[in-house]
Amino acid sequence: MQRPFDIELAKLKEKLLLMAGTAEASVQNAIRALIERDSVLAEKVKADDDLLDRFEMEVDEEAINLLAMAPLATDLRAVTVAMKISHDLERVGDEATAIAKRVLELNREPQLKEYVDIPKMGRLATSLLHSALDAFVHQRPDQARLIIPADNEVDQLHKQINRELTSLIEQDKANVRRCLNLIVIIKRLERVADHATNIAEDVVYLHEATDIRHADHAE
Amino acid sequence: MQRPFDIELAKLKEKLLLMAGTAEASVQNAIRALIERDSVLAEKVKADDDLLDRFEMEVDEEAINLLAMAPLATDLRAVTVAMKISHDLERVGDEATAIAKRVLELNREPQLKEYVDIPKMGRLATSLLHSALDAFVHQRPDQARLIIPADNEVDQLHKQINRELTSLIEQDKANVRRCLNLIVIIKRLERVADHATNIAEDVVYLHEATDIRHADHAE
Repeated sequence: MQRPFDIELAKLKEKLLLMAGTAEASVQNAIRALIERDSVLAEKVKADDDLLDRFEMEVDEEAINLLAMAPLATDLRAVTVAMKISHDLERVGDEATAIAKRVLELNREPQLKEYVDIPKMGRLATSLLHSALDAFVHQRPDQARLIIPADNEVDQLHKQINRELTSLIEQDKANVRRCLNLIVIIKRLERVADHATNIAEDVVYLHEATDIRHADHAE
Repeated sequence: MQRPFDIELAKLKEKLLLMAGTAEASVQNAIRALIERDSVLAEKVKADDDLLDRFEMEVDEEAINLLAMAPLATDLRAVTVAMKISHDLERVGDEATAIAKRVLELNREPQLKEYVDIPKMGRLATSLLHSALDAFVHQRPDQARLIIPADNEVDQLHKQINRELTSLIEQDKANVRRCLNLIVIIKRLERVADHATNIAEDVVYLHEATDIRHADHAE
């Protein structure tokens, strides 16, 4: 027999899944706008950010109501984790918007180079986000734990692309503005993966009642 | 007569104030390490970040306990806001650490130029943070409301310094790495002010029960 609390919590999780889908699509669209030089799509990403902002406010309101009816300490924990996840997703929307703005600037000039590693980084970051939400909704702390080392891969890719862009700047000052825009874009992608890691850490914390945030994840 | 809940909430606020003092000092030390080219101080900022991480975990634990004993919906709101503030303060520590790392890199080369606007930006960002915490602890939503337009000033300063650094890169490729480090530093300072704005918005929300996050703050 489900408690009323469980039914409401399930609804909140549904909303978070919808929110995560929106956030993921925004990042994917922002990267697609970069690769296909599609300024209309970049504008759409900027406009869609309002959606995620509204989602976050709704989740907060519903979470406060849920807290008032939460019977157990573990229930309180589940609700506070849902609020944190919603905050991370809202910030993923901010990262996508920041990428979209830089794409609009880049589209005013000829393309600097063919992009290979940036789309790869984008796919990796959004797949981590997807996997983290899935681990939350299906209560899979084991799956969440796998996300944390995978974030290092994104960091490595970020460092490598960053080095390449920095040397392109040194080669020719005509590259400066375009490279700076790309440097911002990859930094934002790296932050998308960080949000996925935050979510994964919260899922582990929720289920195993150990706080693995701020533990040293390096080998 | 104070309720047990109020006594515990007051303790949590004390902890947040202590945490805010640590976060503020970290940003100030990171900027001082830049100006005085003090690598020892920059290393200290990196080491101090553990403190803020621990603070955040303690606040979360105490908040969960407080939620379990919160009598009213407004009490729930106060506790969830405290959790959000602690998260923002922990992230201020991350910004300070990121600045410190760039300072260590900058200190390996001769100084690019005298810094005038970066220290100014640092003072402004930390004063906003201080003011936001003060508004939370002393329950002053009117004071919190003033922080939101002040954040625009930081954004303007950020844009101006960013333009100057970009043109320095174009002037001479020998400047590239130092300018990129400085660009990261000012971006991180801008984010410190964003955290102050987040906190201010939460304080207004707490007291006026209206959600002003994601409202358009532009004139």
